[in-house]
Amino acid sequence: MTIRNAFYAQSGGVTAVINASACGVIETARKHPDKIGTVYAGLNGIIGALQEELIDTSLESDETIAALRHTPSGAFGSCRYKLKSLEENRLQYERLIEVFKAHNIGYFFYNGGGDSADTCLKVSQLSEKMGYPLQAIHVPKTVDNDLPATDVCPGFGSVAKYVAVSIREASFDVASMAKTSTKVFVMEVMGRHAGWIAAAGGLASEAEGEAPHIILFPEIDFDEAAFLAKVKETVENHGFCSIVVSEGVRDKDGNFLADAGTVDAFGHKQLGGVAPTIAQMVNRELGYKYHWAVADYLQRAARHIASGTDVEQAYAVGQAAVEFALEGRNSVMPAIIRENDAPYKWSIGSAQLADVANVERMMPREFITEDGFHITEAARTYLSPLIQGEDHPPYVNGMPQYVRPGNKLVAKKCEPFDI
Amino acid sequence: MTIRNAFYAQSGGVTAVINASACGVIETARKHPDKIGTVYAGLNGIIGALQEELIDTSLESDETIAALRHTPSGAFGSCRYKLKSLEENRLQYERLIEVFKAHNIGYFFYNGGGDSADTCLKVSQLSEKMGYPLQAIHVPKTVDNDLPATDVCPGFGSVAKYVAVSIREASFDVASMAKTSTKVFVMEVMGRHAGWIAAAGGLASEAEGEAPHIILFPEIDFDEAAFLAKVKETVENHGFCSIVVSEGVRDKDGNFLADAGTVDAFGHKQLGGVAPTIAQMVNRELGYKYHWAVADYLQRAARHIASGTDVEQAYAVGQAAVEFALEGRNSVMPAIIRENDAPYKWSIGSAQLADVANVERMMPREFITEDGFHITEAARTYLSPLIQGEDHPPYVNGMPQYVRPGNKLVAKKCEPFDI
Repeated sequence: MTIRNAFYAQSGGVTAVINASACGVIETARKHPDKIGTVYAGLNGIIGALQEELIDTSLESDETIAALRHTPSGAFGSCRYKLKSLEENRLQYERLIEVFKAHNIGYFFYNGGGDSADTCLKVSQLSEKMGYPLQAIHVPKTVDNDLPATDVCPGFGSVAKYVAVSIREASFDVASMAKTSTKVFVMEVMGRHAGWIAAAGGLASEAEGEAPHIILFPEIDFDEAAFLAKVKETVENHGFCSIVVSEGVRDKDGNFLADAGTVDAFGHKQLGGVAPTIAQMVNRELGYKYHWAVADYLQRAARHIASGTDVEQAYAVGQAAVEFALEGRNSVMPAIIRENDAPYKWSIGSAQLADVANVERMMPREFITEDGFHITEAARTYLSPLIQGEDHPPYVNGMPQYVRPGNKLVAKKCEPFDI
Repeated sequence: MTIRNAFYAQSGGVTAVINASACGVIETARKHPDKIGTVYAGLNGIIGALQEELIDTSLESDETIAALRHTPSGAFGSCRYKLKSLEENRLQYERLIEVFKAHNIGYFFYNGGGDSADTCLKVSQLSEKMGYPLQAIHVPKTVDNDLPATDVCPGFGSVAKYVAVSIREASFDVASMAKTSTKVFVMEVMGRHAGWIAAAGGLASEAEGEAPHIILFPEIDFDEAAFLAKVKETVENHGFCSIVVSEGVRDKDGNFLADAGTVDAFGHKQLGGVAPTIAQMVNRELGYKYHWAVADYLQRAARHIASGTDVEQAYAVGQAAVEFALEGRNSVMPAIIRENDAPYKWSIGSAQLADVANVERMMPREFITEDGFHITEAARTYLSPLIQGEDHPPYVNGMPQYVRPGNKLVAKKCEPFDI
């Protein structure tokens, strides 16, 4: 077997554990120097390939690569950039081949979500369509948990844990204060299209009446009257009401609640913030004092409270991607296969990229209670294993020690290219 | 020495470690059954005393009391309720004495901030002014870190750690995304009157150019032009800009930026949210894509990332409060004395309540850099020790196990009282 180099890139929104996948890819590749030469990482994802900005990861020590396992975010930079189809933009694909050829790249590892799987699929067809021998393997990642064919998307378990832990803690706080102060707390979480992340908040509630009392899902049309009645009933029964709301909640006409036509003092339309919208609605209609939080990037970057299971799976899919490549496979994605719910057992399988790209996995309706305000036992059975285990990063002087690789670029061999 | 019972209450906004102080009080009292009988905890703070809603903590197992050390929030309920002066509302004080007498309460432990210290001071004067023998000890607590006479207020170190860790993590995320997506991230933190919490965010930045790049303090009048210039310069130099903003930031006329006259679709004035205000200002004037987060209660409830130092200190002031009582002291507060910066060494001293009540400790101007956008070395020297050490709570099935004591009330002996 000839030695060929590898290209690895991170794509789309980053997660607390995508670097653990990078670690899995690079550490595994390093074990096979007879087959894989250098792993080049794209600076800012696929853009790095197009612009020939290739990070030479061989310059990084084993310690630095190992530290990626506990470092959140995309260490090599990510991007939001989707390749057009071969028909629409053949130039881009020719450019990729030019760069890959110049650097003897025979393996393409693309670490991302649905859009990235589509890009990876297109790249995997280069071999056949453009006569350049290349194996393209997709490494799954997305906090949105919307990839098909895998039990879970690495990145999701850690957001899920962050959300469940945070709403539990904040709800304990509100419970203390409710007698004379805050009675309603609203926490906004990510998930524009699906309620996976919001559902995870439900894990904080382990018995009847425990917070969060209400979860608002993008899957359920927002019904103001039913919601307010539920809030009132909850405050009357439990003294307070704790709410998790997905950023993607919409009214029956399909409008995001966050785009409630709010304008600032200058008349500019204000975007975002379904939590304040909901909280103020409660205050206006029911008079309760409220607090609200918007976790935003904190939730997907929170490596300090990462799920141990998620970290292991993120590493495993990176490792498997390289093993698949060494087996000569192309156009596939390592997938996590659930063998058992409790105790959770999982293994690594594989999925064809053609079955993954552009397919969005939605949350099943049976994961949401009939009244639309909470999760069911089926959801708990699915979600609970994903947040199990802690994987505390190392701390120095009270702060988690995250690594910043040097990211030195290899010398360019091609002409500049305008993306 | 006669055996007398004790009253303990939590007051004001709760913290990640106020229950550690409760644990210190109760565990220490249990070691002296020859002097202290039952510790009664006020249900919802001082209101519990006025309404004779006294939680019998002797019914709680040693295990439950020990678990308070790792449980955030106020386990017995807190309140926002300030006693008026003896002259203004003598009835309330007579009621307190009625309840204390009925339950043989000779020790009063009040766990709170500045307002509570004032209440505790008033109660401490009951002995003399109303002839009822009572020792009142204040147990310091407040995330705002604004009590004088103590190196730090228990509760602050854990918020500080949460904020520093969170802004580090989110900034790693933004750094990954900045090439094609988010370039500016704004995180709003607590601190209506003083910038202690915002300052703690500065600990995430350990070298020139590291995030957060800008901190907006309540102590510094907000100057839009200077701020925008700094954001622009930062994005041009570092590719992105990460900002911590205190909820208390004001313009030169003293108006909170969060009250920027925003109205919702119905014309209702929108309160709160300086982070979106700042983020949208950046987008409007500089065009950068932004994200923002509002941590709100998550920050002060985040026991999962509590500072080990803070937990120890919170316990120690609870323990010392009981020891002071056993020494016959009245009208005092255990204080944390800094013996050395690095390595941090501290001991427990004491302060007179008369010197603590209604005195607000502001952050020194020399803790803020001359340009007003970051912290100085002096601030680091002060802040850094306070976030050191981790004190992970126990986890079961991936979730931190926080305790809810039974909170059984003792039988009432007095007539009802209307607060």
